[in-house]
Amino acid sequence: MEYHLISADSHVNPPPTIWREYLGSEFRDRAPRLESTDEGDFQVFEGRRTPILGINAMAGRKFEEYSLTVRRLSEQRPGGWDPAERLKDQDMDGVQAEVLYGGGPLQTQDAALRHAFHLAYNDWLADFCSTDPKRLLGVAYIPCETVEGAVAEVRRTARKGLASALIPRFPPSGEWFEPQWEALWNTLVEVGWPAALHVGGRGREAGMPKTDAAGFMSDLLMSKFAMGEATAILVLSGVLERHPELRVISVEGQIGWLSFAHYYLDHLWERHRYWTGSKLKEPPSYYFRRQVYATFMEDPVGLRECRHIGVDKIMWSSDYPHSETTWPRSKELTADWFKELEAGDRRAICADNARRLYHL
Amino acid sequence: MEYHLISADSHVNPPPTIWREYLGSEFRDRAPRLESTDEGDFQVFEGRRTPILGINAMAGRKFEEYSLTVRRLSEQRPGGWDPAERLKDQDMDGVQAEVLYGGGPLQTQDAALRHAFHLAYNDWLADFCSTDPKRLLGVAYIPCETVEGAVAEVRRTARKGLASALIPRFPPSGEWFEPQWEALWNTLVEVGWPAALHVGGRGREAGMPKTDAAGFMSDLLMSKFAMGEATAILVLSGVLERHPELRVISVEGQIGWLSFAHYYLDHLWERHRYWTGSKLKEPPSYYFRRQVYATFMEDPVGLRECRHIGVDKIMWSSDYPHSETTWPRSKELTADWFKELEAGDRRAICADNARRLYHL
Repeated sequence: MEYHLISADSHVNPPPTIWREYLGSEFRDRAPRLESTDEGDFQVFEGRRTPILGINAMAGRKFEEYSLTVRRLSEQRPGGWDPAERLKDQDMDGVQAEVLYGGGPLQTQDAALRHAFHLAYNDWLADFCSTDPKRLLGVAYIPCETVEGAVAEVRRTARKGLASALIPRFPPSGEWFEPQWEALWNTLVEVGWPAALHVGGRGREAGMPKTDAAGFMSDLLMSKFAMGEATAILVLSGVLERHPELRVISVEGQIGWLSFAHYYLDHLWERHRYWTGSKLKEPPSYYFRRQVYATFMEDPVGLRECRHIGVDKIMWSSDYPHSETTWPRSKELTADWFKELEAGDRRAICADNARRLYHL
Repeated sequence: MEYHLISADSHVNPPPTIWREYLGSEFRDRAPRLESTDEGDFQVFEGRRTPILGINAMAGRKFEEYSLTVRRLSEQRPGGWDPAERLKDQDMDGVQAEVLYGGGPLQTQDAALRHAFHLAYNDWLADFCSTDPKRLLGVAYIPCETVEGAVAEVRRTARKGLASALIPRFPPSGEWFEPQWEALWNTLVEVGWPAALHVGGRGREAGMPKTDAAGFMSDLLMSKFAMGEATAILVLSGVLERHPELRVISVEGQIGWLSFAHYYLDHLWERHRYWTGSKLKEPPSYYFRRQVYATFMEDPVGLRECRHIGVDKIMWSSDYPHSETTWPRSKELTADWFKELEAGDRRAICADNARRLYHL
């Protein structure tokens, strides 16, 4: 198979109905379920009744018709959970392969149930991707309550044919650079998987409602920038220096801020390396350029700066079926956005970097 | 006076001794004081004994000799509090004028004392700047517990000859876009002052120690990015649309991330303006380019992007005497950094934008 266009960040949206099938039997009676009423469809879990999120599945809608939630599950594109529909949508979009995130474990205070959600989601995703493993690359959601649990789930999901590991931007307690996590980094290198950090909320914790214009958009902007913090800590603390084979991906964080982060961290390191006792042998940007990948959708600023960031480290993504997706115009839009780039750079960003990273 | 080089962000470091002189008489017995012991100098306030911060006054030191605190107050350059020494230092650096921040009110739980600190600091700064008002432009620290207090202090300090108003990035409670703050924006426009938002901490709230390499530097990086959040909220919420004459400054936030923020907020606004109910008539970047200034020290990324950011909105600063300062080589360094720019752009960034903004 020849790859011309790989989406390095796309999303599945598993419906509430998967949990009853995939959760371990001891948890099955506590599985979230779908409730359809005259008011609409709802997910019911732990006594909470929540509407179906829509803003993460707006593919194909006009901007004027975007909404935070949808009334019926059927208003979402079935490509979010049906692999055959998915592949049809991707054919229409000219995308040969996708790296699949999203719709991971549900939030719960119960640690055992949370762990079970991870396993269930990964099992469901492995089945989903088995439809066409050369085109559907599933990212396992790794439970990181303990390093033993994390390592075991990396090994288990690698055997099941998944393609990569998502870990939280920050561990549930402590820091990624503490010694107990060495076993996780070693395992990831051993199975040949990158560690993916996905964008998430990072706005001001208190105050702003997140659904008005100022709150929602400033929060999204900050969530992109916050990928700089998570990746900088891995670089500055020496995790990437100690594991030169480890690859890290900033997923959905865009790239237009990255050359500034490289430059400015070097600038700080020159000045503050002595009194802070930094042990890095090279400036921070050296490790970023060697080991930190980043995905983006549309980003003209990042493209102007791409030679400074490192053309071999940035990967285009369609973000299907999220609200920022380029679907169904990915081929035409990327051809237009990347037309000023040299052919080799264009190929690297559109497919080759991802192809190599995921051993396709 | 002809201005070739204006530092749009420099710092005073008032010593603990000023409070006894400048605090209102009813608070004077609670004023912080300086305690000199064999171990070193300390500020004593509300029962806490804290060493003298050094990292904000490293001008002239080698990077190898940077330290978080200093043993003796006398290890700091006296230009931090002595205007005559200050002007000598600036002559040496080729800087004609400076906009002065820093060393504002101390933290305390006592609201009345906090208010008194603002007034005392502003009075001290007005005296400091009166030595040469054409070269020393003081920024009043505006107490924003109530809008009435804020408005009164803007008027009072404007009469005393200060040059601008520093307000917190976010108000102590609520949001800047709430109706009660209209009186503050109207007053600032009336006295011809910009509203300055200064960079401050914005790293991960919990966890990381802020004095190891990873914690300190990732926190500084995030503090720059966080200026995007504070300014974006003023733009997206319509404050700048409602007050087209109001100018806002992102101080010490650097500029290399700004073209991405402009682009990405426009991108989000196009998609999410409908369901979030945005009332803006123009895309966010329109208001940024019209009303939002930003200061920087060294920033090659921002200079590559300066035409996209808006050459009339970025202002160089020496950051004297902070650890990132260009002192005593500002003239030589700016000549080198800005040599690729057109002469008009260079003049705008080095002096003209600030000259106009501060009515010099």
